Amino acid sequence: MGEFELIRNFFAAAPCAQGGEGVALGIGDDCALLAVAPGEQLAISTDTLVAGVHFADPCEPFLLGQRSLAVAVSDLAAMGATPLAFTLALTLPTVSTDWLQAYAQGLNAMAQNCGVRLIGGDTTRGPLTLTLTVFGRVPAGLALTRSGARAGDLLCVGGDLGNAAGALPLVLGQRSAEPALAEPLLAHYWSPQPQLALGQALRGKATAALDISDGLLADCGHIATASAVGLQVEVEKVPLSPALLGFLGQQGARAAALSGGDDYVLAFTLPPAELAPLLTAGWPVRVVGRVVAGQGVTLLDADGQDITPGTRGYQHFPETQ
Amino acid sequence: MGEFELIRNFFAAAPCAQGGEGVALGIGDDCALLAVAPGEQLAISTDTLVAGVHFADPCEPFLLGQRSLAVAVSDLAAMGATPLAFTLALTLPTVSTDWLQAYAQGLNAMAQNCGVRLIGGDTTRGPLTLTLTVFGRVPAGLALTRSGARAGDLLCVGGDLGNAAGALPLVLGQRSAEPALAEPLLAHYWSPQPQLALGQALRGKATAALDISDGLLADCGHIATASAVGLQVEVEKVPLSPALLGFLGQQGARAAALSGGDDYVLAFTLPPAELAPLLTAGWPVRVVGRVVAGQGVTLLDADGQDITPGTRGYQHFPETQ
Repeated sequence: MGEFELIRNFFAAAPCAQGGEGVALGIGDDCALLAVAPGEQLAISTDTLVAGVHFADPCEPFLLGQRSLAVAVSDLAAMGATPLAFTLALTLPTVSTDWLQAYAQGLNAMAQNCGVRLIGGDTTRGPLTLTLTVFGRVPAGLALTRSGARAGDLLCVGGDLGNAAGALPLVLGQRSAEPALAEPLLAHYWSPQPQLALGQALRGKATAALDISDGLLADCGHIATASAVGLQVEVEKVPLSPALLGFLGQQGARAAALSGGDDYVLAFTLPPAELAPLLTAGWPVRVVGRVVAGQGVTLLDADGQDITPGTRGYQHFPETQ
Repeated sequence: MGEFELIRNFFAAAPCAQGGEGVALGIGDDCALLAVAPGEQLAISTDTLVAGVHFADPCEPFLLGQRSLAVAVSDLAAMGATPLAFTLALTLPTVSTDWLQAYAQGLNAMAQNCGVRLIGGDTTRGPLTLTLTVFGRVPAGLALTRSGARAGDLLCVGGDLGNAAGALPLVLGQRSAEPALAEPLLAHYWSPQPQLALGQALRGKATAALDISDGLLADCGHIATASAVGLQVEVEKVPLSPALLGFLGQQGARAAALSGGDDYVLAFTLPPAELAPLLTAGWPVRVVGRVVAGQGVTLLDADGQDITPGTRGYQHFPETQ
């Protein structure tokens, strides 16, 4: 048995490959089989992480295991889907048992956290690259897309922004900080918590949604384009964590929140009447702006002055790959 | 707009991203949405191809586009599934418009051939790597797995074996051959035809099936293990193409068929009573052996003598990664 076949057996025996609703056939055959209940649709998303591009190389494999799955599952949260399963395509330069065990432990921890089962994948030799495809179920017609925002809706986010971008200099070893600041930022980077419950609570309420992976302004641009509307973001309303403010100061924290990446917090648009019930129910909804007729994203200061970076808004922010 | 976002738009506009049954939402949102009809299940398979490992680097991008999709869709054929859709995770070291257009043309050609629609994926910078995840539909309970072979069944294949392994020295430029020999072998390597119609015809008839990717003996080992049976292969019954025999001679052709990879021809087990109706209906079914009580794979010569390579059968054949 070759070493790559051993790896396949290793993952087939992992806790995250056991049990799970809707999985008619798991790892070990030519295909996995998923059952989808009548009235439901299957939501599918694929994400690739490349060593040295999307994460430092080398990095701690346990943390990479957590983060690689969380990033992918966050797309299910953004659709309001309930996670079911995932596949893992793992390309490795060499086979290290220690590395694999630590990676699988991180993967298992996040899989348990999100309620997803590993149902298949591929293991190959080559430069370290991870491609995860995640599957969720959502009632037909109730998935949250990017295209339904209407003028008059509120623009909301599901929590503090910028923490992961703030953590990046710590991750890369470019800066250090006292533990009280560093720990919450690093936790957000390495173990983002996909807002699955919030996404499901927004079904039938939010008119558009996505998860913020490229920074608030860039991702709002995606909603604006898909919905053919304009979005106004009020900079003073953007929620920032104490740790981020303590580490970067207000100006740096705002820059991280507006144009940093990797937050994996939901951004969504909401008819005003939907806001109060969500807040009453305790959902972490923060209003950061509104939807207007027009196009593109405008950033406003406390006086309502246009302070949009560049001349065409979000497109001039550096792209995160 | 960054160059990788341009690539995403390029694929979103490709012919293979248009139309298609069962696709409720295609490229462009956080997730794609698939509808699955009541009484059907979704078959899912993931394959990764790494440059320099699974294909020569550089190689002709049109051919790579065809082959990368065919290899993945072949797993749907092996389950008896009807193809629906696929995602493409494309990692590229540099962005070349010529390369992308040629790759997409090959991908489109095979997508049209197989009836699958591109519904999403990811595009990232890094060493050239392709991960395709394919989706098909199959009536619940009728998927062809590896685990149902029973003693007394016939062992069959869906056509000539060894052509792709025979083509490899031509692909790598290690040997040359006259066009009458080279062309059919290279066509098989670069543009394998997933046996989708045969897989669907075998639903409810074959007791086990897979597509041959690691060579007949190695893949028969997978059926033997999953079904807890033994398989006997009669070497004289293994079908070999005239081109392969002409290029490698009988001994070389047999070695390619038994232990070469990349055939993507179906191997399956069949109760004897099922054979005649399939042959009468014109399906390309070739009997190459039978299922017996026991374990592992045994290779027999024309006199019924055991000529299994090594001491433990298929496991000693070199593994293809």
